[in-house]
Amino acid sequence: MPLHQSIISVNQEDKQNMTKTNPGNYFEDFTVGQKLVHATPRTITSGDVALYTSLYGPRFALQSSALFAQSLGYRDAPVDDLLVFHVVFGKTVPDVSLNAVANLGYAECRFLRPVYVEDTLTATSEVIGLKENSNGKSGVVYVRSTGFDQRGDAVLDYIRWVMVHKRDQGSRAPEAQVPELKTALSENDLCVPETLALERYDRQEAGSSYLWDDYAIGEKIDHVDGITVEEAEHMMAARLYQNTAKVHFNQFSADKGRFGRRLVYGGHVMSVARALSFNGLANAQTILGINGGRHVAPLFAGNTVFAWTEVLDKAAVPGRSDCGALRLRLVATKDQPCDGFPDKDEDGKADPAVILDLDYWVLMKRAS
Amino acid sequence: MPLHQSIISVNQEDKQNMTKTNPGNYFEDFTVGQKLVHATPRTITSGDVALYTSLYGPRFALQSSALFAQSLGYRDAPVDDLLVFHVVFGKTVPDVSLNAVANLGYAECRFLRPVYVEDTLTATSEVIGLKENSNGKSGVVYVRSTGFDQRGDAVLDYIRWVMVHKRDQGSRAPEAQVPELKTALSENDLCVPETLALERYDRQEAGSSYLWDDYAIGEKIDHVDGITVEEAEHMMAARLYQNTAKVHFNQFSADKGRFGRRLVYGGHVMSVARALSFNGLANAQTILGINGGRHVAPLFAGNTVFAWTEVLDKAAVPGRSDCGALRLRLVATKDQPCDGFPDKDEDGKADPAVILDLDYWVLMKRAS
Amino acid sequence: MPLHQSIISVNQEDKQNMTKTNPGNYFEDFTVGQKLVHATPRTITSGDVALYTSLYGPRFALQSSALFAQSLGYRDAPVDDLLVFHVVFGKTVPDVSLNAVANLGYAECRFLRPVYVEDTLTATSEVIGLKENSNGKSGVVYVRSTGFDQRGDAVLDYIRWVMVHKRDQGSRAPEAQVPELKTALSENDLCVPETLALERYDRQEAGSSYLWDDYAIGEKIDHVDGITVEEAEHMMAARLYQNTAKVHFNQFSADKGRFGRRLVYGGHVMSVARALSFNGLANAQTILGINGGRHVAPLFAGNTVFAWTEVLDKAAVPGRSDCGALRLRLVATKDQPCDGFPDKDEDGKADPAVILDLDYWVLMKRAS
Repeated sequence: MPLHQSIISVNQEDKQNMTKTNPGNYFEDFTVGQKLVHATPRTITSGDVALYTSLYGPRFALQSSALFAQSLGYRDAPVDDLLVFHVVFGKTVPDVSLNAVANLGYAECRFLRPVYVEDTLTATSEVIGLKENSNGKSGVVYVRSTGFDQRGDAVLDYIRWVMVHKRDQGSRAPEAQVPELKTALSENDLCVPETLALERYDRQEAGSSYLWDDYAIGEKIDHVDGITVEEAEHMMAARLYQNTAKVHFNQFSADKGRFGRRLVYGGHVMSVARALSFNGLANAQTILGINGGRHVAPLFAGNTVFAWTEVLDKAAVPGRSDCGALRLRLVATKDQPCDGFPDKDEDGKADPAVILDLDYWVLMKRAS
Repeated sequence: MPLHQSIISVNQEDKQNMTKTNPGNYFEDFTVGQKLVHATPRTITSGDVALYTSLYGPRFALQSSALFAQSLGYRDAPVDDLLVFHVVFGKTVPDVSLNAVANLGYAECRFLRPVYVEDTLTATSEVIGLKENSNGKSGVVYVRSTGFDQRGDAVLDYIRWVMVHKRDQGSRAPEAQVPELKTALSENDLCVPETLALERYDRQEAGSSYLWDDYAIGEKIDHVDGITVEEAEHMMAARLYQNTAKVHFNQFSADKGRFGRRLVYGGHVMSVARALSFNGLANAQTILGINGGRHVAPLFAGNTVFAWTEVLDKAAVPGRSDCGALRLRLVATKDQPCDGFPDKDEDGKADPAVILDLDYWVLMKRAS
Repeated sequence: MPLHQSIISVNQEDKQNMTKTNPGNYFEDFTVGQKLVHATPRTITSGDVALYTSLYGPRFALQSSALFAQSLGYRDAPVDDLLVFHVVFGKTVPDVSLNAVANLGYAECRFLRPVYVEDTLTATSEVIGLKENSNGKSGVVYVRSTGFDQRGDAVLDYIRWVMVHKRDQGSRAPEAQVPELKTALSENDLCVPETLALERYDRQEAGSSYLWDDYAIGEKIDHVDGITVEEAEHMMAARLYQNTAKVHFNQFSADKGRFGRRLVYGGHVMSVARALSFNGLANAQTILGINGGRHVAPLFAGNTVFAWTEVLDKAAVPGRSDCGALRLRLVATKDQPCDGFPDKDEDGKADPAVILDLDYWVLMKRAS
């Protein structure tokens, strides 16, 4: 019995007969329109930010320096966008994906306002679609998850779809409802802080002279460096996000599984690749949105991650002439340098070294 | 020559002839009534808390969210009880257990008041018992250790007994004095913050609907999940606690030793097991006291820790009807899931997978 | 083309034809008198300090306790000197040593004023010497690097010389200019905070009764303990310092290299050895300067680090009778305990176990 229901409807007697551990939700437990309130509010601290730095080594000046951030009109260095994403995502796991077969995709992920140290994040999800698989064993659940700060203001929202086991194969399927998803956010969906001011932007401090104007659609950038991932690192990361998905932590059980290894949390790969992308995109100070993302293949400890970027699109930011948005495709590989831009073949099949294919928008200063 | 004595009595000439490194205290160096002032005061920061989260992944709402804590009458999110325990314990190591053969037990551990970020902790110990072993090679030292905050208020005290080497087998033994130890703290020994207020307690945020009333004496809970421990993690933890016990850090020396491996700090196992126990005990927001604990077998990096709980007792909290105390037995295993509740056999011999057997009191909201 | 030049002189058209990743500077890119402004300002937080504690386990009271620091006239616990060094050093890597063959040495490193949590550090370097190697393939670059806080006050400066590849072997060499370097800083070069007050210095809290007066020139101290280093630890450290030197992170590339292993950042060894030196030097609360340092041999994960100290010199601190300076030689080894003080042989050849030979000044209270 799922947590959010038990709180509302379970009486004392029933509870005595149930396990007190969280069994997670099965496909039958979800209904379209259902609201899930996720557990464990989380106050973000400078300690979380330091761990994020230590785990990935990001060098974007906006998150690294309170002074640089203030020179751009932020009240302090904002918390890294992906740290916010991972914390909110982690909260959804016990209610959405504890019984997942696979995480299928993301869409329409928008970073709505900056998060600062001392903000307390909470998360809710709404079920927006359901579709049973033809085999009767599982189904796809679509949720829109939202992260809030302590003022109740939304800081992030995104759509995720997951394949979830059914508890009982014989149970009747709900009518299929599949939401329409945008292929990509448009510039009107992107939120730029109103206080953003770029006159004092210091490219030397930021680490690159290349601005929005310097990037061309179709341009490819090899981020050169590689980072080898260790078990202690990806587990410390997932615990920092209070992400409890079993596959990341339990080697005893992994020994009996398909891979024989603990799986690195997909979001860890996103953060490693984003940090690598500094070398070539140092002025991409903040992520505005994620259009979609695919964890093409699993990553294991001991693998070395490389990354390359393709510029997919460029857009003006409505109402501003000092900055623009770049739509980027960030491809990460394992154990293969990216000077050859490993990609799909003619049949659309990904190069076997590719582990992540992420489509996202960043904000970048324009030449004045 | 032990530190606490050298400070008082050693003159300049003597010192020139001595090593400047700390040799630790031997059995002969202890006398009943002796007070030890431990070194290195420690200001606890939000960085320490973030590392604790990253190393164990606790999800109890009280320590995770400043807002949740404030809704319960705390002025901020308190520092995790076991983090406080480990920091105080770490300070005692150089003076109490540097020459220990074995850590034999804990008793009467009371968490006396919440510790917050920016508090500075110090520690002292008083020798309360001594008993030479019949082999003349070592003896048991009983100490009561106390942690203080910057106001001089005690935040934690506990009794520990340790088997310590004698420096000289021929030295004369002191008269045996063995303190009487309580098997368990009673409800009158437990300290609940006076400002605690539970009317606004949010079970959805806390992550479970099960309250004090829902737990029955004798009930067993399998905490389901397993966590594999890495060398980098347990060493980072022990260093965070400024715990310098040699067995945790030195593989070169361990290669020549009994196990051939570095030993994981026993407190690390306590914290892993406590974090696992969230799944089944999410409303056990704070530890009131530890009645006793036994590190039944050593844990090594690469092992996967599982845990289960038995409800040993339930008690009212004097003067309060909104919360109660649960006396829990937390058993941790290595490389063995706990769905079968691995335990002692008829002869009282522990299952070989068991590594920790901890008897402690938690605070939990009562149904109103 | 090096970053600092591209910002000044590259026009739009040129940039379209260049890679956007940082190729680093080659020997030909440096000229004596050239100023390099390094990227990514960094606000130091209590999270960074906690990670430093967790990675090395330092126990010096000054950095551990805000109260102890305040009792000595500091406004808060200062950030560990070597953490400041590593952060400033990390910033110089992309501009100074990305194409380095080898890091040859340090000199005249002075800690100029305390750094506190919330200070924002930036760094610049000035090229003070150049000398091409006779093989025409590389040359030695001498830089003086300076770290600044948000007020623009210098907190640290040091000279470093590095052997750097030439881009083109045929390019003409500049006239050799080799700066004169001091063998050691004199007491007049050392900066002691004006507010320092030692009347309330508590040796019990500090952990040792041995003061400046107790150390004799020529005295050797074995620091006894050993610490095994893990891959996750040294990489987390280097990323915390935003140090991007490729050799620390990329096992895929290391597999094809000379050692087959990732190299541990030399500064990591300095910090491990400094933390070990607490056992024997607990009152050496702060580093005043580094006279020179040599990374004698590489360290790899899995090695166990030991350390010993030789007292090289003692000096009064100008204008103060309450404290003095000790000039120490800190020698670190791998996989060899230091009770025999492993050192150079008669021919000056280092014991093969030695990995670090550091010559530095510390501040210590004098007996009153």
